[in-house]
Amino acid sequence: MTSVAVVGVGMIPFGKHPERSLVDMASEAAYLALKDAGIEPAQVEAGFFANAFASRLFGDLTVGQNVFWEVGINRVPVVNVENACTSASTAFYLGYNMIAAGQAEVVMAVGAEKMYVPELGLLDSGLTELNTQLGLVAPASFALRAVRHMTEFGTTPEQLARVTVKSRNHAQYNPFAQFREPVTVEEVLAAPMIVDPFTRLQCCPNADGAAAAILCSPRLAQRLGRAVNVEAAILCTGNYENPQDLVRWETDYRACGLAYERAGIGPEDLDVVEVHDAFTIAEILHYEALGLCAEGEGGKLVEEGHTALGGRIPVNVSGGLLSRGHPPGATGLAQVFELVTQLRNEAGGRQVAGAKVGLAQIMGGDKLGDTKSCTIIVLSV
Amino acid sequence: MTSVAVVGVGMIPFGKHPERSLVDMASEAAYLALKDAGIEPAQVEAGFFANAFASRLFGDLTVGQNVFWEVGINRVPVVNVENACTSASTAFYLGYNMIAAGQAEVVMAVGAEKMYVPELGLLDSGLTELNTQLGLVAPASFALRAVRHMTEFGTTPEQLARVTVKSRNHAQYNPFAQFREPVTVEEVLAAPMIVDPFTRLQCCPNADGAAAAILCSPRLAQRLGRAVNVEAAILCTGNYENPQDLVRWETDYRACGLAYERAGIGPEDLDVVEVHDAFTIAEILHYEALGLCAEGEGGKLVEEGHTALGGRIPVNVSGGLLSRGHPPGATGLAQVFELVTQLRNEAGGRQVAGAKVGLAQIMGGDKLGDTKSCTIIVLSV
Repeated sequence: MTSVAVVGVGMIPFGKHPERSLVDMASEAAYLALKDAGIEPAQVEAGFFANAFASRLFGDLTVGQNVFWEVGINRVPVVNVENACTSASTAFYLGYNMIAAGQAEVVMAVGAEKMYVPELGLLDSGLTELNTQLGLVAPASFALRAVRHMTEFGTTPEQLARVTVKSRNHAQYNPFAQFREPVTVEEVLAAPMIVDPFTRLQCCPNADGAAAAILCSPRLAQRLGRAVNVEAAILCTGNYENPQDLVRWETDYRACGLAYERAGIGPEDLDVVEVHDAFTIAEILHYEALGLCAEGEGGKLVEEGHTALGGRIPVNVSGGLLSRGHPPGATGLAQVFELVTQLRNEAGGRQVAGAKVGLAQIMGGDKLGDTKSCTIIVLSV
Repeated sequence: MTSVAVVGVGMIPFGKHPERSLVDMASEAAYLALKDAGIEPAQVEAGFFANAFASRLFGDLTVGQNVFWEVGINRVPVVNVENACTSASTAFYLGYNMIAAGQAEVVMAVGAEKMYVPELGLLDSGLTELNTQLGLVAPASFALRAVRHMTEFGTTPEQLARVTVKSRNHAQYNPFAQFREPVTVEEVLAAPMIVDPFTRLQCCPNADGAAAAILCSPRLAQRLGRAVNVEAAILCTGNYENPQDLVRWETDYRACGLAYERAGIGPEDLDVVEVHDAFTIAEILHYEALGLCAEGEGGKLVEEGHTALGGRIPVNVSGGLLSRGHPPGATGLAQVFELVTQLRNEAGGRQVAGAKVGLAQIMGGDKLGDTKSCTIIVLSV
């Protein structure tokens, strides 16, 4: 396979955008990515558009075609992708595959979601899911994991709260994040309880948002300059064959292993990491799956500051989902936006000094204790 | 690029299945395809699942993962694809690309839709579409094309009606079709008017349905036997730059041209064709785009029986959308099912004698007079 480069990224600030349509937000992100890359719309040979809720909320099909049309991209193959929280990273993955396979030279991945819509209602895993019928929606299922981690490894409520404190400390330097006010451990623990042990500040907020990335062949990337290399793009589905360990998603470990293998690196080579901190415990579990620490020691890792800006391996310097907010159709590409910004040394107050290798991790959809989808993207300069 | 083969297909009869869930229907089609191919679930390296309305109707995300899980396929990359009427053919296209690129040896594409659901309501192109807001939903926009074709080329109401008559004549031999009673031209013209010139029998009915296909590398196909070759799989988005000619979709002509070029054939080489007869005029327009006749002569082509079973180039011997019914998430793979059945010489009463080359065409989504997506698949033995 040929290698693949990211040559342009675009993103709008995540937050409440009641006045903007999905297509409007997405096409701005796409336009910004084109401008960033210095690429003409007519050079884009295929498009992947990520979204989870447009059909449910607006009755919209084939939204991606409308988005690409708005920025002058037409006639090419366009696919609308839905993979829950991994929707945007799946769009990136499909674009990567197309170029790695030599089937296109320039592909654009765009993702967007409107979450501040009253009709959205309670998020569930779908009416057909046993989980949902039993009330095991996301906050509840992550809470079970948190309690198990606390029981098994002595992880403390303070350690969980520190994930949010770190997130907000980072987010104050990220103009794209929705919540940028620092908070203390005490404030996190005193916030309204959602499901024990998570207070409201330990659950990622909704957000309206959009993000985009342009992938291209190394040949073209060289001409454009400023390229970031894609060292790995992995997508796996969960393992539904065996009962799952609540503190160890087999799929998370497997995807991380595949990504390290593909990229030819290990956790010690990472400079900056974005993980799917949908809830505070998730970030701690992902530390362990990624091998940033031993199993059971994720709580200690954040408590000792190793994953904070300036620490050994900064995680979620963007503020992650907890501060940026989580539009499932856009989050994966917002992670790519952050890594590219870091690897280009353009992240301002949240810059990780000398970052050369970055990794983004996401899990999407819950099913009987495992995940329905896990993606890992590794970038380097 | 390596070549690609279809080694297994599966399909459930289209119709009203109020007692069956989406996952239930889809996983039966997937199971039948695995059985047909003689492939173990563990051999499948990636899955693409096509669906348009699950999120809207059931709040379901990542349905594909559930479907593949039901037949024992997990851990692999799975992507949920939505591309309106081309959803299923897009899933096939992505699977084809993956194998053509050497990234997998076995990929399964599955598509399903439940359309007999009261909550579905009036089908539109999404609330954000100007078309929908102006009332230009699908029957109306196709009616404009029909009237224009009649005005410009003298196409008659009887010629339009003959598309349905031929469809039902074919469908009586297809146990997978929903409507299998032959009808006369008089009956078609006397049916309740939907939008002039279409009576109800000239608009494709809804259907619940599911279909699946397994694609694999030539190496594996040879071992399995019974392989059908994929000569081309094309996906394009419409051209939104210029006003469109109502009797000539530029995208339809372009996609057909690309498919012929890729497959190294012309219209004279086709033995059996499936087109997207959402309305009777659509089939006539597709004849012309495919070069089965000159522009403007599609009405005559069907009237003279050239596209009927036993004619020069039989079209929609399955009964097409008009008789089979149209679950957008499944139709593209139902076309593949039909072509594979024909090329294997297993189509019984509707068999096209000695069929060696087949083509399937679909268009999806409407936008300002053009289509949002067009796919062409060419198969051969």
